[in-house]
Amino acid sequence: MNFDKLFQSQLDQLKQEGNYRVFAELQRQCGNFPRVKNHSHGQEEVTVWCSNDYLGMGNNPKVMQAMIDTVQECGTGAGGTRNISGNAWHHKQLEAELADLHQKESALLFTSGYVSNWAALSTLGARLPNAVIVSDELNHASMIEGIRHARCQKAIWKHNNPEDLDRKLAALPANATKIVAFESVYSMDGDIAPIKEIVEVAEKHNAMTYIDEVHAVGMYGPRGGGVAEREGLMDRITLIEGTLGKAYGVVGGYITGSNALVDFIRSFASGFIFTTALPPAVAAAATASIRHLKDSSYEREMQQRQVARLRARLDAEGIPHERNPSHIIPVMVKDPVKCKMLSDILMDQFGIYVQPINYPTVPKGTERLRFTPGPLHTDEDIEYLVLALKTLWKQCAIAHAVA
Amino acid sequence: MNFDKLFQSQLDQLKQEGNYRVFAELQRQCGNFPRVKNHSHGQEEVTVWCSNDYLGMGNNPKVMQAMIDTVQECGTGAGGTRNISGNAWHHKQLEAELADLHQKESALLFTSGYVSNWAALSTLGARLPNAVIVSDELNHASMIEGIRHARCQKAIWKHNNPEDLDRKLAALPANATKIVAFESVYSMDGDIAPIKEIVEVAEKHNAMTYIDEVHAVGMYGPRGGGVAEREGLMDRITLIEGTLGKAYGVVGGYITGSNALVDFIRSFASGFIFTTALPPAVAAAATASIRHLKDSSYEREMQQRQVARLRARLDAEGIPHERNPSHIIPVMVKDPVKCKMLSDILMDQFGIYVQPINYPTVPKGTERLRFTPGPLHTDEDIEYLVLALKTLWKQCAIAHAVA
Ligand SMILES: Cc1ncc(COP(=O)(O)O)c(C=O)c1O
Ligand SMILES: Cc1ncc(COP(=O)(O)O)c(C=O)c1O
Repeated sequence: MNFDKLFQSQLDQLKQEGNYRVFAELQRQCGNFPRVKNHSHGQEEVTVWCSNDYLGMGNNPKVMQAMIDTVQECGTGAGGTRNISGNAWHHKQLEAELADLHQKESALLFTSGYVSNWAALSTLGARLPNAVIVSDELNHASMIEGIRHARCQKAIWKHNNPEDLDRKLAALPANATKIVAFESVYSMDGDIAPIKEIVEVAEKHNAMTYIDEVHAVGMYGPRGGGVAEREGLMDRITLIEGTLGKAYGVVGGYITGSNALVDFIRSFASGFIFTTALPPAVAAAATASIRHLKDSSYEREMQQRQVARLRARLDAEGIPHERNPSHIIPVMVKDPVKCKMLSDILMDQFGIYVQPINYPTVPKGTERLRFTPGPLHTDEDIEYLVLALKTLWKQCAIAHAVA
Repeated sequence: MNFDKLFQSQLDQLKQEGNYRVFAELQRQCGNFPRVKNHSHGQEEVTVWCSNDYLGMGNNPKVMQAMIDTVQECGTGAGGTRNISGNAWHHKQLEAELADLHQKESALLFTSGYVSNWAALSTLGARLPNAVIVSDELNHASMIEGIRHARCQKAIWKHNNPEDLDRKLAALPANATKIVAFESVYSMDGDIAPIKEIVEVAEKHNAMTYIDEVHAVGMYGPRGGGVAEREGLMDRITLIEGTLGKAYGVVGGYITGSNALVDFIRSFASGFIFTTALPPAVAAAATASIRHLKDSSYEREMQQRQVARLRARLDAEGIPHERNPSHIIPVMVKDPVKCKMLSDILMDQFGIYVQPINYPTVPKGTERLRFTPGPLHTDEDIEYLVLALKTLWKQCAIAHAVA
């Protein structure tokens, strides 16, 4: 029997909506980032403007060397789950580094940030007595799936709104074990949560706090501990979650918290237990990256400089973009077909790569281009990008005028 | 407020049952595998007997070199999700290699085998009309969680029992989209599914087939395509899932199937979409490993030789072990405390590392030691292991006699 019709009909619908995804096939070349070879386009060199290797740490020589040295020392894989022969000295080193980064007793490594959120939230929600997860309405898919998987009671509060959180918490029964889950930097809009207010509301209601700092670790705080570090709030948060795949430039995810909390997740989370550990070489590279960004503020400062510069230049040229206090610059298009078209023209005519962001990553009707300037973008790169956008915006205006 | 009491009470219970897990902290040293440094034990050298780097490919020079070369070429990380700047030429190469391995139109890479099962099954179950997942009762945690997450109808059939599968399928409504999910090699008992019979029953009922070959790829079939390759059945199975973290010696997971099926999972699976892609260097290492094992049967043959040898020597010495047709040799202990004690003595007195396997990896009361001989274990390693087990078994018999 042929099942392809079942799959194809849903794919056809995606295509009709303009939401079908085509991946650009890229090849990074060390020393040349943010320039990459584009295999989807005759191996042309293009400039990446949408990388989540926010600080270019994936090309940092110390990070690369740590990975290479550890492959040479230990080989390519861990060879087992953490429990069954896969627990390397390098994993323990990394977990110690992460605990120190967030000034917590313990840390636990997962294969990705996605798995860390999914596994930690589903375990907390499923195993704590009368658990209620109280979730910001714009939380990431990995958190939503974790909450869903927990099958505990949940409540959704208005995005970044501590007053609404307060109301939602007040409405819960006295015997509930409350877990307030939110992010610091929301990756698609670039807005930042009012962490202090949220923590205060949570404390008032004896609720745990669970923060996702995936788009902040490495980039905010004097040692890269995230927005909570910058604001001196790490010790008031029960669990801090992060990734090693974005600003740290490698791959993997983690949680940090008290010894008992971390041991609890380690002992009960299916997504931690039943999977091969990350390669020791990946752990060693991540450790090197975290150590570097604990000491060096250069990458953070250069990123902030280039973010400010791009914003100023967009303003000067009248190109609309969303205001926010982070390193993420969204330019709203609000239509999946137009958004893909703009992205295609930027690639084809200007050698600029910025992926169209569409459903399900953002809600339908909020399609956008999302620019992430980093320390490796030069002032000339910024000028060239602004020039390209200006040209496109003019053409659009003309198209509008004659339509 | 202090939440640690909540966590601690459940941890205490684990400890009371003897199910609390202590990870051995190991450091692999290339060229020396299966000997590793044991950091939990004064950096002593010990021999690993429970690795899932079944063929020692994690130390294969070609695989290591591919990883090192690609770090040097592209850096340490992918820098984004597959959709947003993280899709590398190396991922596409690996997917082409995997599709060829299983003789399917397409393949899709995930961050782990766990995520591939969870994401694929939950997407199929949630999105296909009237889906019913019909699951072998001993399927792996990652499949169970995927099925649970799908929230579709499900039916459980008796382990490796095609007659029961037939009955379960016959009882389903005519309009159901049926997905039969099972494994080839069950990793804890080492038994192998009657794939042909299962496929025939599934075909009779117009059901899709979903096979997990995680503990078989690389090791069975003339090109390492798994048990389904060995038995000439790959083309009759709808979806073949596997890992890159066990016999291939790296990390990551995948599915293979028709173009439409793979595109469907690619387009809709949350666990694929919302996560940073594996590093290009990991993909390159996995590609090198698969290519090597397509051509070379040496590792497979040596593994089979050492498995047969250990079995024969255990038989000769009267040490009981489970019979099965795979490379996995379980020695049942059936008590978590005794199992850990035996494992501790092997480590402390003999420098032999075999992790006690306990709940939740196996059902309570079926605790065991699980030996995985590989091509890098010498005949002397086997003699020494058998000697150690003989000594322990004698002591146990004496303990029994005087008790
Ligand atoms: C807010 C947030 N949390 C978690 C993740 C998942 O992290 P990772 O990419 O390490 O899986 C992402 C993005 O990928 C994210 O945007
Ligand atoms: C049968 C089975 N499927 C899937 C997995 C998960 O694969 P991975 O280790 O690549 O996450 C495992 C073990 O880890 C397994 O035993």
